Amino acid sequence: MGQKLLVLGGGFGGLYAARELRKRFGETADIQLISEENYFVFQPLLPEVAAGAIAEMNAVTSLRELLKGVRLRKATIHSVDFDRQVVTVFQGVQRRPTEIEYDHLVVAMGSRIDLSRVPGLSDHALQMKTLDDARRLRAHIIERLEHADVTFLPEVKREALTFVVVGAGFSGIETVGEMKELIDRSLKYYPNIDPSEIRVVAVEFAPRALNELPESLAAYAVKQLEARGVEVMLNTGVASATGRRLVTSTGEEIPTRTIVATIGNAPSPIVLEMNLALNHGRVAVDRTLRAQGRDNVWSLGDCAMIPLKEAATERGDFAPPTAQFAVREARHLAKNIQAAVQGKPLSVFQYKSRGSLASLGAHRGVAEVFGVKLSGYPAWLLWRIYYLSFMPGFDTKLRVFLSWFLDGIRPRSVVQLDVSGKDGARYVHFAKGDRVFEKGNRSDGFYTVVSGRFEVTYQDDNTGEVTCREVGPGGHFGERMIMGETTRYGSVVALEDGKVLVLGRAEFEKLSTTFDAMGDYFEGYIKDTYGVDWHPARPLGAPAPKAPTDVTPAAAKQSAAE
Amino acid sequence: MGQKLLVLGGGFGGLYAARELRKRFGETADIQLISEENYFVFQPLLPEVAAGAIAEMNAVTSLRELLKGVRLRKATIHSVDFDRQVVTVFQGVQRRPTEIEYDHLVVAMGSRIDLSRVPGLSDHALQMKTLDDARRLRAHIIERLEHADVTFLPEVKREALTFVVVGAGFSGIETVGEMKELIDRSLKYYPNIDPSEIRVVAVEFAPRALNELPESLAAYAVKQLEARGVEVMLNTGVASATGRRLVTSTGEEIPTRTIVATIGNAPSPIVLEMNLALNHGRVAVDRTLRAQGRDNVWSLGDCAMIPLKEAATERGDFAPPTAQFAVREARHLAKNIQAAVQGKPLSVFQYKSRGSLASLGAHRGVAEVFGVKLSGYPAWLLWRIYYLSFMPGFDTKLRVFLSWFLDGIRPRSVVQLDVSGKDGARYVHFAKGDRVFEKGNRSDGFYTVVSGRFEVTYQDDNTGEVTCREVGPGGHFGERMIMGETTRYGSVVALEDGKVLVLGRAEFEKLSTTFDAMGDYFEGYIKDTYGVDWHPARPLGAPAPKAPTDVTPAAAKQSAAE
Repeated sequence: MGQKLLVLGGGFGGLYAARELRKRFGETADIQLISEENYFVFQPLLPEVAAGAIAEMNAVTSLRELLKGVRLRKATIHSVDFDRQVVTVFQGVQRRPTEIEYDHLVVAMGSRIDLSRVPGLSDHALQMKTLDDARRLRAHIIERLEHADVTFLPEVKREALTFVVVGAGFSGIETVGEMKELIDRSLKYYPNIDPSEIRVVAVEFAPRALNELPESLAAYAVKQLEARGVEVMLNTGVASATGRRLVTSTGEEIPTRTIVATIGNAPSPIVLEMNLALNHGRVAVDRTLRAQGRDNVWSLGDCAMIPLKEAATERGDFAPPTAQFAVREARHLAKNIQAAVQGKPLSVFQYKSRGSLASLGAHRGVAEVFGVKLSGYPAWLLWRIYYLSFMPGFDTKLRVFLSWFLDGIRPRSVVQLDVSGKDGARYVHFAKGDRVFEKGNRSDGFYTVVSGRFEVTYQDDNTGEVTCREVGPGGHFGERMIMGETTRYGSVVALEDGKVLVLGRAEFEKLSTTFDAMGDYFEGYIKDTYGVDWHPARPLGAPAPKAPTDVTPAAAKQSAAE
Repeated sequence: MGQKLLVLGGGFGGLYAARELRKRFGETADIQLISEENYFVFQPLLPEVAAGAIAEMNAVTSLRELLKGVRLRKATIHSVDFDRQVVTVFQGVQRRPTEIEYDHLVVAMGSRIDLSRVPGLSDHALQMKTLDDARRLRAHIIERLEHADVTFLPEVKREALTFVVVGAGFSGIETVGEMKELIDRSLKYYPNIDPSEIRVVAVEFAPRALNELPESLAAYAVKQLEARGVEVMLNTGVASATGRRLVTSTGEEIPTRTIVATIGNAPSPIVLEMNLALNHGRVAVDRTLRAQGRDNVWSLGDCAMIPLKEAATERGDFAPPTAQFAVREARHLAKNIQAAVQGKPLSVFQYKSRGSLASLGAHRGVAEVFGVKLSGYPAWLLWRIYYLSFMPGFDTKLRVFLSWFLDGIRPRSVVQLDVSGKDGARYVHFAKGDRVFEKGNRSDGFYTVVSGRFEVTYQDDNTGEVTCREVGPGGHFGERMIMGETTRYGSVVALEDGKVLVLGRAEFEKLSTTFDAMGDYFEGYIKDTYGVDWHPARPLGAPAPKAPTDVTPAAAKQSAAE
């Protein structure tokens, strides 16, 4: 089969690199692409998926359909060994590692989101990076409308109807515009929500929106969004976030249950572990797209730092992380790999942007193409025509076109599909004075404290006696679920800013009834704290263990065989 | 507003009951429907969603669109108090209970699946009850094809390409037919899978399929499916299931990673808790659809046992749990509630089935309508026309029609969307001799033993010494992840049939680093078992706790405030 050409990643960079390699090498090389998903996401459509204009399945294309003649391996990349020229992956449910050899390696792993610099943001913000993010955002918005429509509590309604997007670049502006359109078009189904109760905010740290576009177009976009009721707060960063509020860098508190973060691009952890030379967290390549210090490793797209001139230092001296550039980089990279295989000289990558477009939702957009500025309906129409032509795969084009057509003539659905990927153990951030839960609330999880101090108060139903205890890092509350509690017996308030880990009710019940060390711990704890005799209920099918006399590790139920 | 009429459940029974009540009472009553989802699932389309013929969003209809003039409350029902005439719910993320009053209550909560009678089945079988089930099944099938295409291990490939459906009633037959069509149409994208390697099996305990249809049609259906390569095993139950095999009641072992259970209908837990008179686990109603012993509680659909004659005893004396009946029951129930409100006499429910239809996939079906039998293409076409006309909501009809049209002329997508709802702590069933994991496997979770005995073997890398230990109920293995292990150090085998609880890696890491009692336990355990000094790594932002001197409950990090 000749050369083994291996591409890591199935985004714009990886997909087009594999296709271009196939065009150049035909059947003479073994071209393989490894991706965690078996589909290609057309990123510019994600805001429309979040807004329900396009069904998620219609916004993506099967990589197998797009990669004829290329082997697709759906797998998770574990590590890369440059010396042995081997990539180790885990595929399917299989837990055994599989090794894939290569002669030339193309690293096109994109980027990920890192929100860890703002307290609470990574725990409470939705993102707009993957298809699942878009799906989750749509479900989240509709859930808020459903709740606002039926709640009797004004503050709950206010929080539910306030939506904040962090960042006013392309992704932030398109997301906030589409979100507003979804909300506006949905309100007719929610008789108890008045349009005046809706608050949609975009928060941007920079002094202007859409940094990539000329100032006049950015100003037009902001004016358009404001006319549709979106607040755009410039020169405003995020100081902290909890499940019920966002605090801006200017000190404003916005009560909200919806924060969408479109900021914080960071390198993929696997790229960081590869030990390639990096530049600002991205793979340092030379102008031929070859990784520094490596003969047969190449990189492109969002994960590479590609200089467009010698002695590049400024941000503008490097290729921007856009689809437009990634596709051109892919073409050039394939050419250079062919040259390298044939022992010919490599050429440097050069490309100049043809322009930029942004959709604002509700049939409005802004565009600059070949230096010409467009705004309003023509820019929006151009956006749709351009992306429809750019989208790979005939069936995707057909389905997106039909979706747009139907969305234009029919009402938008408010069906709320299930939200996937809820973690069984999630972090929740609280600010000083926040209540964590109150007596009578539904018991939904077991809480352990990561940081901060929390005060637990409960009143004995019989004696009326009130008990307080303070819980700090490593401690816990909410454990009465183990005794069959379905609604809370006590109340908890944060005494200072802090973070807790919430283990879901199902996970907690399963673990505490199965894992002896945990059951034993709670047996003692409940006796000491509540003065109650309680024994872990072993699940069906499990023999009753010998009654433990203490809970030192030695009492663990393992016995050495032989 | 006059009467408060409250409907619990948004399936066929609940939806049509609310609509019929609205028709009869108009604005003179306050009609409200409580549902966990804000959409109506057209159940007969679920197999087509599982097969990707229809996108999930296109197979459901917004309840708000269907329930004009009815208040929809998206909420989880917690309890019903018949004396106070109040239903308590939890709505949205809200953990505070909300009380809803009623004058007349309609219980239309459907049924759920209970697979607990067969060892391992509830832990390892997919279901076909909800929209999410259908979505999950489609993703699961495509994941198996992706894996089979790239694996180098013959037994893994065989397991991945064997698909078993349990039950050959309407749901089982339609599901197996659609699954086979999806697989057949997808194979062109998987060059390393030969059609002869695919095995699709339907297992049915009864001596015949499609019990609701005449014997000749059932035989035709089986012949059709067999001609398309589906094995139909009649007189065959399920003895047990693990993640890698199904054992039939006849003792055959089928190596498979895909089991779909369409059997085991059971009452909804909330209906069981209501303390209504029950008959075979369903609400016992009289022939007027009123719950026995209650003046203002009514029930219909799958959750009610509705006698069609006096002194009903046989299964055939009661209304079958079909959509066709539920819609007629709804009409009659609304009429009787109106009569009750007006103090007029109630009438008894009577209806005779007009016929039954089943789709077999691949343009084939079977039908009996007004006593006339149809099979093959005409029956399939009738199935589509009938259900298209029966489906509520113009937009759903339009989208389903377009989906069918596109699916007829274009290839079917093999895009594998994310699977939602993965539990952070799941049970896994093993048979004697099964390996749980092996040295070098990816470390994907922490295992505690529910039942059975497991042998853990590991070899010291330095000394070569082999250590064995046996772990029984309450004990654990796989805990070395806590020390940073990413691939397994030891191997584990089941010494007898047994069950384990697997806590996901993310959940285990978060919990063991945050929850002091657990960190302390492992500190001692690792010292005792591996002779290694190890201290829990507290997460960022958490102050280092005082070093614990022992792990008795008294050492828990709570201190009573005041």
